[in-house]
Amino acid sequence: MPPTYDVVIAGGGVAGLAAAWRTVRRGLSVAVADPAPGGGATHASAGMLAPVSEVTYTEEPLLRLGLASLAAWPHFRAELEDESGVELDYRTEGTLEVARGADDMAYLDDLAAFERTLGLRVERLTGRECRSFEPMLAPSVRGGLLARDDAWVNPRRVVRALRTAFEKAGGTLVADRVSGIDASGTGGASVRLASGEAVAAGQIVVAAGSWSASLLPGLPVRPVKGEILRLRGPRGFLTRCVRGLVHGSPAYLVPRGDGEITLGATAQELGYDARVTAGGVYELLRDARELVPGITELELTETTVGFRPGTPDNLPLIGPAGPPGVFAATGHGRNGVLLTPITADAVAALLTGDEPPPVTGACHPGRFSK
Amino acid sequence: MPPTYDVVIAGGGVAGLAAAWRTVRRGLSVAVADPAPGGGATHASAGMLAPVSEVTYTEEPLLRLGLASLAAWPHFRAELEDESGVELDYRTEGTLEVARGADDMAYLDDLAAFERTLGLRVERLTGRECRSFEPMLAPSVRGGLLARDDAWVNPRRVVRALRTAFEKAGGTLVADRVSGIDASGTGGASVRLASGEAVAAGQIVVAAGSWSASLLPGLPVRPVKGEILRLRGPRGFLTRCVRGLVHGSPAYLVPRGDGEITLGATAQELGYDARVTAGGVYELLRDARELVPGITELELTETTVGFRPGTPDNLPLIGPAGPPGVFAATGHGRNGVLLTPITADAVAALLTGDEPPPVTGACHPGRFSK
Repeated sequence: MPPTYDVVIAGGGVAGLAAAWRTVRRGLSVAVADPAPGGGATHASAGMLAPVSEVTYTEEPLLRLGLASLAAWPHFRAELEDESGVELDYRTEGTLEVARGADDMAYLDDLAAFERTLGLRVERLTGRECRSFEPMLAPSVRGGLLARDDAWVNPRRVVRALRTAFEKAGGTLVADRVSGIDASGTGGASVRLASGEAVAAGQIVVAAGSWSASLLPGLPVRPVKGEILRLRGPRGFLTRCVRGLVHGSPAYLVPRGDGEITLGATAQELGYDARVTAGGVYELLRDARELVPGITELELTETTVGFRPGTPDNLPLIGPAGPPGVFAATGHGRNGVLLTPITADAVAALLTGDEPPPVTGACHPGRFSK
Repeated sequence: MPPTYDVVIAGGGVAGLAAAWRTVRRGLSVAVADPAPGGGATHASAGMLAPVSEVTYTEEPLLRLGLASLAAWPHFRAELEDESGVELDYRTEGTLEVARGADDMAYLDDLAAFERTLGLRVERLTGRECRSFEPMLAPSVRGGLLARDDAWVNPRRVVRALRTAFEKAGGTLVADRVSGIDASGTGGASVRLASGEAVAAGQIVVAAGSWSASLLPGLPVRPVKGEILRLRGPRGFLTRCVRGLVHGSPAYLVPRGDGEITLGATAQELGYDARVTAGGVYELLRDARELVPGITELELTETTVGFRPGTPDNLPLIGPAGPPGVFAATGHGRNGVLLTPITADAVAALLTGDEPPPVTGACHPGRFSK
């Protein structure tokens, strides 16, 4: 007899682990299968909780989803820190989006007007005001926008906290990869592990990021390669997230409480090419230097590649997918950490027969085949 | 009774290991103490055997030393590969020094004239000829100099070969660091290891690179930090060593037979700051891109820091140093791999009472106190 759980979740990134934690707290038995939890896109992620900066004006459903999840973060964070004892380095000093030319300034003015219609607190700053907030900014910064409601978190700590909270609540981590799903029989579903073992499950959640289509063929998710760097500075080198457009690409620097700075990120559709490239590292350093020249003195501690799970409309895939009893929780693109609370709530509701948050209705995995 | 050797060598970089191998072959018992042989400056080194490119016209003693050692390399290599069974990736396709502007061209013309007076084979090439030799060169390359007598080698393979040949010849590797020298007694000298153990030695060689002054106080050797990168390309991406002046700094790309390319190097006098910096990596990639734009597509596999052992006159320190029976073999700056054969011959001669090669007379460690 194979081990049996009410729910097996394939993939232990932030989406899978958070859904698992929220579900086990509702009284179901849950196993998460992942040989290296948090080792995928989550490991690369910068952890910005910035729903507006990351979307275009045309992506309203994604914006609403992001704002709902941002609103859920403080409570989610409080519960997670409380239950795990792990501090998430959740920071609320805000994002400083800087402009270096007239075009950038005009863009920021439009963005500020748009953010205000959403009820978000934004302030237009002069270049001097920007540098008074962040003295390491380049002299070429002519102005900026301080988004006070943006927050950020250390995704690696979120993984550690979720693992701890999940296991404390009675959940099971299985250090193996799900290699297939068998949901065709009448006696319930099961997953096959790479080791060959089978695990029986009442319900199954595929949260395997950009690899999810290997378990649910036809699922419209694809890898969007990102290269991202980590630097080590003195504490307080930067206080806020700094973002800006350089050479036509968005660049960001995300400071942690311990002095680490995450510097990202490239975006390329190259399949699963996991190489850190000379060109990617060069461009990230070049662009970040133009925003914050002093980074040249910092230690380069890490070069990382991750694969964002992309979808055709940039909305995630959350809901029933494939055979009955099988759900998807993937396709979060560059917003996986931001969307963690709302994804977890939606999945936990679906697995227990409740109504998921209405805003997640736009995320039905079957929406492209209608 | 502590273990006793005719010779103990403190430091297992290329200098120490090569001296040890040459000495054990002369019939002496030799131990090399190093917790990580080849893990210092040798590990970072690109392994260019290019005596002319690396010196200024004013450094004639260093030039003569380099040319003598370059002449010794083919025989040294043949013996080392034969005795170790390790292939060194010794390559003789030559160095292509490229010019991108009129100043660079004038400099190369002078260099060519100078090299010809030394009897070296150099050819002036047009930009088109340069690109016919190396198609990946930037369109901005206007001309170049092909130095056919320059060679290069993989220093990590040299270390592997030297360790093997040394141990096959009966030498002993001690995986510990020499923390002090005791040569004051009448019953011969000894070294103290970091573990606390003592090892007795008839003679002692300090070949601890930039750390040598910690064993021989007052020895005029200092660390010159270098950051260096390794890329992974397809085989044949480059065939020759490519060098050029970019933004006032010399940049080089050294290809290996397996497709690896070593890209160097920064030079900073910052003590033992072992951090890989964002600025160092940025500048190396920026400069190399200007010579060979296609490197952006290659994998960045390694970022390394090494400490070149620098001396006031850029000549190494080879000869008696400190108490009787104690010798130095350090201070090779950026020329350690090039100078390996001549250093080994000189040290082996000194330890056995023979005359070292006359050209090494300029390297006496006491020359600054005269």
